[in-house]
Amino acid sequence: MSEPGDEELERDEDVWSPEGSALDRAVFNADGLLPAIIQQEGTGEVLMLGWMDREALRRTLTEGRVTFWSRSRQEYWRKGDTSGHVQYVRAAALDCDADTLLVTVEQVGAACHTGTRTCFDGDPLEVRKGIAPVE
Amino acid sequence: MSEPGDEELERDEDVWSPEGSALDRAVFNADGLLPAIIQQEGTGEVLMLGWMDREALRRTLTEGRVTFWSRSRQEYWRKGDTSGHVQYVRAAALDCDADTLLVTVEQVGAACHTGTRTCFDGDPLEVRKGIAPVE
Repeated sequence: MSEPGDEELERDEDVWSPEGSALDRAVFNADGLLPAIIQQEGTGEVLMLGWMDREALRRTLTEGRVTFWSRSRQEYWRKGDTSGHVQYVRAAALDCDADTLLVTVEQVGAACHTGTRTCFDGDPLEVRKGIAPVE
Repeated sequence: MSEPGDEELERDEDVWSPEGSALDRAVFNADGLLPAIIQQEGTGEVLMLGWMDREALRRTLTEGRVTFWSRSRQEYWRKGDTSGHVQYVRAAALDCDADTLLVTVEQVGAACHTGTRTCFDGDPLEVRKGIAPVE
């Protein structure tokens, strides 16, 4: 079995399948998608949020690289295939409702298609800051 | 003007309104909502993901505390009002498509209703880790 990108993956003796576990536990919305938060390992930077269907989740958990479902293009989108800005999967977790995924990654280069490191670098909002009351 | 919780907020000389700016730029989905990622200031922990409509976003940007729209209860939900686990807003940013919000907060206690610090503590998934090829 040889597929593009396989050389970049850690080899396991037997390929693990998440069937019957995470894939069945994950709760997808009416469009069959769940939001996936992508976070840089180590620094904790929130890089972006993308969407995954069951198959994109399966690929992400088993291929070592993050795959999204592109809502605009209506196709699978393995991050970095065209840009080179690969996201190598390090860890993943479902939230308490199993309807949101957090993926910890090693991000190569810019996560954002605009060229910035994260998708949240370009539009900081003015806020009224809250502070905890003095005890 | 005195409202519950005001004592916990930084005072500005003039109250800033985000009307015509962030609220009009934000892109909401067909249900009128956008996902809001909540991150702890400093540590970078991703605490949870909630949903906001335009009014919840307005409150979050102007009140110093995070307010969500509860999809299950169909009502506004100012985090911490019942649990005490308040989220004080420190910063916020829209992503490159303006359809996702990142809010940096000071989280009091547990972010998750299950009692864990974050909503992603309870269900780590088995993954095949990806590693970058050696140059």
